[in-house]
Amino acid sequence: MSNKPLILITNDDGITAPGIKALVNAVKDLGEIIVVAPDAPQSAMGHAITISKPLRLSQTDLYGEIKSFQCSGTPADCVKLGVDKVMHRKPDLLLSGINHGSNSSINVLYSGTMSAAMEGCIEGIPSAGFSLCDFSYEADFTLAAEIARKITINILKEKLPKGVLLNVNIPKIPKELLQGIKICRQANAKWEEEFDERLDPNGRKYYWLTGKFTNFDEGQDTDEWALANNYASVVPVQFDLTAHEAITEINKWNF
Amino acid sequence: MSNKPLILITNDDGITAPGIKALVNAVKDLGEIIVVAPDAPQSAMGHAITISKPLRLSQTDLYGEIKSFQCSGTPADCVKLGVDKVMHRKPDLLLSGINHGSNSSINVLYSGTMSAAMEGCIEGIPSAGFSLCDFSYEADFTLAAEIARKITINILKEKLPKGVLLNVNIPKIPKELLQGIKICRQANAKWEEEFDERLDPNGRKYYWLTGKFTNFDEGQDTDEWALANNYASVVPVQFDLTAHEAITEINKWNF
Repeated sequence: MSNKPLILITNDDGITAPGIKALVNAVKDLGEIIVVAPDAPQSAMGHAITISKPLRLSQTDLYGEIKSFQCSGTPADCVKLGVDKVMHRKPDLLLSGINHGSNSSINVLYSGTMSAAMEGCIEGIPSAGFSLCDFSYEADFTLAAEIARKITINILKEKLPKGVLLNVNIPKIPKELLQGIKICRQANAKWEEEFDERLDPNGRKYYWLTGKFTNFDEGQDTDEWALANNYASVVPVQFDLTAHEAITEINKWNF
Repeated sequence: MSNKPLILITNDDGITAPGIKALVNAVKDLGEIIVVAPDAPQSAMGHAITISKPLRLSQTDLYGEIKSFQCSGTPADCVKLGVDKVMHRKPDLLLSGINHGSNSSINVLYSGTMSAAMEGCIEGIPSAGFSLCDFSYEADFTLAAEIARKITINILKEKLPKGVLLNVNIPKIPKELLQGIKICRQANAKWEEEFDERLDPNGRKYYWLTGKFTNFDEGQDTDEWALANNYASVVPVQFDLTAHEAITEINKWNF
């Protein structure tokens, strides 16, 4: 038995994505790594789980000596199946990413990367998700990997508060421009939908979801502010969605 | 132009489910109703949105004089597409459900019903999701429909706090046993995973996700307590996932 922490690594871009390879390489000396990741891209899956069809899980040799498994399900499925059928015990840490593209502010809700980390946190595993603000397949993960390593070392040392996971986003900048790592709150921002309406070869309409990201938040303590000002942003995230302050107000309603 | 509020109704069990029909019937005199719901069941979709394939939208005659549309996407897609391509303006209210099965406590995260309501809230629309704690297709929606109507009337009259939506769950009990409607916080509960491992006809393993629901929360102010004690539970929910109290603590870390 090794005394090294057992680390589960997953993502939502799929097990072959450069981002997860960068994450594995960045932390592989910090513990015993096991990779359980989707066999195909699962972006924007939110916190979906697979209940209406069966799941497949198979070992791969994609990571050499590091054990790795691909799963036919969502990122949240990978965590559930990884813990139950691969690790047979709770890992000491769950890392998700590095995502190709931002998961800052409202994107945390749509993000498969963050749903995997959230699932880990629900299961009582210290968990973090990492995302690079660059959608490109050829993105340079050097800086993001360095920050992921630093944060991983800190989580192992300092421990996370109970019920709290981390949403880490790294700006697309050269390392020398980085101003530091900033602990933030989730910015009040959203996507303004625009649907691209097209006709198929049979003349029937279909729609592509597109949108324009808009930040309504002028605070300098938000993740959007941090990223726009060349900081890596770290938002502590919780899965208790209760709007506690609203309870008193709604108690005044007359049912 | 009518002065009636414009109400968007959606769900995750699909446009033909008895639960959404019960909801439409319960509130149809309270405003101008438009139904935009998935063309097939979308349970446990979390806050998934469809970005990797196009969406279809087509009108149906399932609701007689009430305009209704089925959409090939997720519940969150239905809201986005409904607002943008059907209503062409923000509705005054969004109602999601009535779901066949509970969405109390941690289920809020996995729930397609609640992701539709959450999407509405993000778009600035007063929104609520309703769920009956009965998975059966033949469930009796009488009590749930009555409660949905009462709460809808209250939302229209009292307005919801900004950034807050409602997660309403109704116990599976006869009306005369109902103790009332209780405003609650989300209970600290989770699913203990159990995967049902099987062999396909070719001898290859596959897994069905199952699980046992466990409530770790002894508080009498939670939704699980309310439901177990014959109350309908109402949890005010927010989409700011920041664990604000954790910011100070993590700021002490040494990056």
